[in-house]
Amino acid sequence: MTQGQPEHIPDPTQRELLHVVVLAGGVGGAKAAAGLYQILPPQALTVIVNTGDDFELLGLPISPDLDTIMYTLAGINHPEQGWGLAGDTFQALEMIGRYGGPTWFRLGDKDLATHIMRRYLRDQGHSLTAITEQLAQALGIQARILPMSDDPVCTVVDTPEGRLPFQEYFVRQRQQPRVLAVHFEGIDRARPTPAVMEALARADAIVFAPSNPYLSLDPILALPGVREAIRSRRERVVAISPIVGGKALKGPAAKMMREFGESPSPLVVARRYADLLAAFVLDEQDTAYRDAIAALGLRVHVTDTIMKTPADRARVARAALAALGWEVVDEHA
Amino acid sequence: MTQGQPEHIPDPTQRELLHVVVLAGGVGGAKAAAGLYQILPPQALTVIVNTGDDFELLGLPISPDLDTIMYTLAGINHPEQGWGLAGDTFQALEMIGRYGGPTWFRLGDKDLATHIMRRYLRDQGHSLTAITEQLAQALGIQARILPMSDDPVCTVVDTPEGRLPFQEYFVRQRQQPRVLAVHFEGIDRARPTPAVMEALARADAIVFAPSNPYLSLDPILALPGVREAIRSRRERVVAISPIVGGKALKGPAAKMMREFGESPSPLVVARRYADLLAAFVLDEQDTAYRDAIAALGLRVHVTDTIMKTPADRARVARAALAALGWEVVDEHA
Repeated sequence: MTQGQPEHIPDPTQRELLHVVVLAGGVGGAKAAAGLYQILPPQALTVIVNTGDDFELLGLPISPDLDTIMYTLAGINHPEQGWGLAGDTFQALEMIGRYGGPTWFRLGDKDLATHIMRRYLRDQGHSLTAITEQLAQALGIQARILPMSDDPVCTVVDTPEGRLPFQEYFVRQRQQPRVLAVHFEGIDRARPTPAVMEALARADAIVFAPSNPYLSLDPILALPGVREAIRSRRERVVAISPIVGGKALKGPAAKMMREFGESPSPLVVARRYADLLAAFVLDEQDTAYRDAIAALGLRVHVTDTIMKTPADRARVARAALAALGWEVVDEHA
Repeated sequence: MTQGQPEHIPDPTQRELLHVVVLAGGVGGAKAAAGLYQILPPQALTVIVNTGDDFELLGLPISPDLDTIMYTLAGINHPEQGWGLAGDTFQALEMIGRYGGPTWFRLGDKDLATHIMRRYLRDQGHSLTAITEQLAQALGIQARILPMSDDPVCTVVDTPEGRLPFQEYFVRQRQQPRVLAVHFEGIDRARPTPAVMEALARADAIVFAPSNPYLSLDPILALPGVREAIRSRRERVVAISPIVGGKALKGPAAKMMREFGESPSPLVVARRYADLLAAFVLDEQDTAYRDAIAALGLRVHVTDTIMKTPADRARVARAALAALGWEVVDEHA
């Protein structure tokens, strides 16, 4: 890296002292984290991950966002699906179905190993943070992947049919029901982990991944102290727009904006987090919103934010840091 | 069935009133049970299964003998291996290995479903008996498969290197260590289930499968009340020799006999259980022992006891019942 904001950036010969934090959930989060992991010294990156989607199936603790990010950073994620592992099979799930067990959540055989290990280590008394660290290290990941909390937080959505647990809404009902409101059950008793607070406190840059604001970023920000910690470092905080050309690239973010009475656009996201951000990465399809976002006091950086290839991911990651005034020299180029 | 011992056998038009119980463990037990299942009305059969080999791996409760018997009666067992399911894969195990977990016990992906369901149902408060019934029914098995006890019993072996848990001896060390003694930890606090005692009490025939006497049959017989219940029905009890031509067809039975200072032969088994038995099925290679076994007061029935095909299994099952004076008309012939 070379210096962009001289007062904030350590000596470029001391790269190991750099700290970049990304707040992430789901596929957009995994891609942005992977882009940063590509362009930064690997130990410079900390990913703070939404755990509001976590749930139990047959007694196995499943952390969909942690898993997607872990598999993606390890390079073993399924290349097309937004979940699971490349080359996974479903033999166990088929047998679970024969036994009359649930099969609506597509648990692959390799994936199952993650949940079995997580349950086993949890029963041994380890925290989700410690378990995630152990599993990620075993997969050779040098970045830190931190669950937002070691306490249970359970995202639920209110719909015209009543309150639905997150996976019921997201997977089983394929995000079809209209969302009236989102709640994070347990959030008042939950605490961000010390590792999360420490990572935020010493971050040289904080990146909001292009994840669903309502379902992926808001749970992290709803933890007591997190907003304040981020706001106190506002000059180092950038968000990448999850909305491109009025649509979410993946998932129900745009649909939910409409359900909440908003016209889906990057501006909705920029407004939502304006008090936390210094900069905003806007897709080149959405330059019409540039001035409105700048008027919120944010520096706007425009790029193609669609991430299909590793090169795309690296470009978006570089754009996010550039929006904060950083220029990243690509080691791998 | 037609009448052999008129005083014991119900009206052949009331086949549903017949009750045949087989005591079983391991591969020999599964094959004998499968033979009886083939030749009897399916609901006539109850299999009482050794659970001394049960253990936990990564928090999953594994019941190797129950599983082998369940898979065999469901017709989904691996055709060559003495364990596991046909066409199973090992994707989860490979991933568990990447995470640094244990891989010495070859847990297949389909097999894993059984242990996950068992753990889940156990956590819901179900007994091993109830869980086994539910899983077996889901696989379409009409015979009853009963664990010998719902209480934990843990077979351990004393070796020159010290005491080893059963799977450590059996799988990990491939039965190589010399066995000085076998113990069933927990046996004094364990009770046979009411279902086991009821099945024994109303059995028209009780068959000791050609299972390892020390490791598979002894744990069942060591449960308080079981020997007495069987002895009180001694006229209906037959054992199938697990030793053929001085060897065990599978497993360490013959090796253990030598370690216990005996010359491996069917006579060792006949003597061990003489007070419980009315009859004994001897392999045609071992007719030299016929008189010695008869001298113990047992009726001896000779057949080829090697079970490679379904026809072999049926022949051995028929021989066991014939030794008790029963003649089974093959419905499927």
